[in-house]
Amino acid sequence: MTAGMNAVPIPFTSGDYAARMARLVDDALEAGLDGVIVTPGPDLVWLTGYRPTAMTERLTMLLVAPHTHPTLLVPILERPDAEAADGATAVGIADWTDGTDPYEAASRLLRPDGRFGISDSAWAMHLLGLQAALPDTRFASLSHSLPMMRALKDDNELGRLAAAGAAADATYAEILKVRFAGRRETDVAADLARLLREFGHEQVDFTVVGSGPNGANPHHEAGDRVIEHGDAVVLDFGGLMHGYGSDTTRTVCVGEPSAEVLEVHEIVRQAQQAAFEAVRPGVTCQEIDRVARAVITEAGYGEQFIHRTGHGIGVTTHEPPYMVEGEERLLQPRMCFSIEPGIYLKGRFGVRIEDIVTVTDDGGARFNNTDHALQIVE
Amino acid sequence: MTAGMNAVPIPFTSGDYAARMARLVDDALEAGLDGVIVTPGPDLVWLTGYRPTAMTERLTMLLVAPHTHPTLLVPILERPDAEAADGATAVGIADWTDGTDPYEAASRLLRPDGRFGISDSAWAMHLLGLQAALPDTRFASLSHSLPMMRALKDDNELGRLAAAGAAADATYAEILKVRFAGRRETDVAADLARLLREFGHEQVDFTVVGSGPNGANPHHEAGDRVIEHGDAVVLDFGGLMHGYGSDTTRTVCVGEPSAEVLEVHEIVRQAQQAAFEAVRPGVTCQEIDRVARAVITEAGYGEQFIHRTGHGIGVTTHEPPYMVEGEERLLQPRMCFSIEPGIYLKGRFGVRIEDIVTVTDDGGARFNNTDHALQIVE
Repeated sequence: MTAGMNAVPIPFTSGDYAARMARLVDDALEAGLDGVIVTPGPDLVWLTGYRPTAMTERLTMLLVAPHTHPTLLVPILERPDAEAADGATAVGIADWTDGTDPYEAASRLLRPDGRFGISDSAWAMHLLGLQAALPDTRFASLSHSLPMMRALKDDNELGRLAAAGAAADATYAEILKVRFAGRRETDVAADLARLLREFGHEQVDFTVVGSGPNGANPHHEAGDRVIEHGDAVVLDFGGLMHGYGSDTTRTVCVGEPSAEVLEVHEIVRQAQQAAFEAVRPGVTCQEIDRVARAVITEAGYGEQFIHRTGHGIGVTTHEPPYMVEGEERLLQPRMCFSIEPGIYLKGRFGVRIEDIVTVTDDGGARFNNTDHALQIVE
Repeated sequence: MTAGMNAVPIPFTSGDYAARMARLVDDALEAGLDGVIVTPGPDLVWLTGYRPTAMTERLTMLLVAPHTHPTLLVPILERPDAEAADGATAVGIADWTDGTDPYEAASRLLRPDGRFGISDSAWAMHLLGLQAALPDTRFASLSHSLPMMRALKDDNELGRLAAAGAAADATYAEILKVRFAGRRETDVAADLARLLREFGHEQVDFTVVGSGPNGANPHHEAGDRVIEHGDAVVLDFGGLMHGYGSDTTRTVCVGEPSAEVLEVHEIVRQAQQAAFEAVRPGVTCQEIDRVARAVITEAGYGEQFIHRTGHGIGVTTHEPPYMVEGEERLLQPRMCFSIEPGIYLKGRFGVRIEDIVTVTDDGGARFNNTDHALQIVE
């Protein structure tokens, strides 16, 4: 456990949110946008601290644009919640009422011939409503137009990600002590969730326990399968702590591993290490993927590494930058992302090793620091 | 408690899912659509039983269209999960791989000059990707093009909604026995969540406890406020049971109510009752709203009833049909929705009463049946 893992971080202030919105205006101008439309989810949390009680068919959107004060348009019945958000004093709040047209209200905020970025996870229904109200306005997803909006973390954010990583590491250290053989995957998953909360997570997002053949399905969560002696077990778990994500994977073995499990695990370990060592400012994202993939391909398992090498992390656990072929963006200091190569042998077992790393001025640093060696559990 | 509240319902079969998709094809043709694009969320659960472990930037979509077998396009690493879904045998599964263009894969399924419905909550990023890949294809949200897709419930669905309503009623009966005065709203909210689970809910979606002035904010969830003697307290809670939603509201008083609380509560009770009595096939949705609103407006509180009267419910707690001014659609047997008028006196208190009702052949029936009289709690 890292000292201070459970220390409460300095709260983000209204000034922090205002500064993020000001930076976003600059970035939008540079990207040729007339503004950015932000809907409930990670973008809105990051810019205003506002998290509506539910994401619904009722339109909520923040407009951040040059030469105007940011405006948050909300359903009138959610106005008190919006006004209570940490960043509310940095925005003007407008509202619309059930039975009126929210897109008409929204269109009054937008340039009819403009080009706007819009949150990736905005509802299609809302985008179609805006497109119908403003047929000459063009829209672009933020993943395409401003993918780096949240990518460079400030010190406070880096501290939160480090704390979340340390809590995930503490969870891993404890899970090695529980019994695996004879228990269901869901039982071990429940242990992981309990430990993440004990070590400070306010939200548990996933607790993958992929034992034996289930480990060969990279997105298997946890099922009724009873874990057996000899199983390789993929453990991939994370959530939010102080609003920032954790995400780490280790593969353990119940009792002594077979020679094949040992061999495959060692290849994945080498791939993860090589990709980590390639991290430094100025390297492309796809290069991180290529380095990991080369190790696995040379060992003869290229076809069994069926996903990209990593994803950015911050107020959500999947965000740009992605470590994937075709992503030519350059790594910059303060980016944070996963490195998680894996090998999946269908019907038999899988191995994945994942750390969250951050780009430093001259290399990379890990937020997950538990041992990569194959651990034996009972 | 209703007999059989905790009985496990008959599982939906692959044939049920196939029948829903076949009906959807007919409805799409009638609506002038060349097909329907369904993304993760309630539409996909309803049509296939498939619920990806997370909704992410990776495109998952089901295409249901005339003259072709339904096709579910998934990221290759989620293919095993998709294949394991209850309705998987009713669809063909296609996949795409990280590093390739999912919209190109999707566009091969769509007519380039066609018109397609798309799930309301599909990500804007995905819609923009499809629009870019298919510039001559038109898209319409399902709320606009096929709003009634999930509105008419079959007997199995009605049974699940009735069971969820009965469990919510049992929760209300128990919450009347707990202490309110001197405890925080969040404590009572935790009691509600525990009770909903005890009575069979697998998911708790909201536990609103709006005490005193917090009750005047219709979307207040539950906060640190310590409940005081004399408070009116809005309790609005629900979640999913056997995959179907509950949603009920009662307003209670801690100790003897003031004359004003009594008067406002009685107006809301009358509005709710009048709207319920107006339910029958052939009446417009907006008429249900008008009936409730008329009672409240005539009593002088029209300005304080700041939301629509109700929303449909099924595999999600907000869906068409909406009981709102402007919704001229006609009620039909097997529709299920909330009737939930309220009066909100800013800075002082709020009152709301909500039942889920279903349209029968000649009227309406309630899935919530607890007493509407103002209950006194301790």
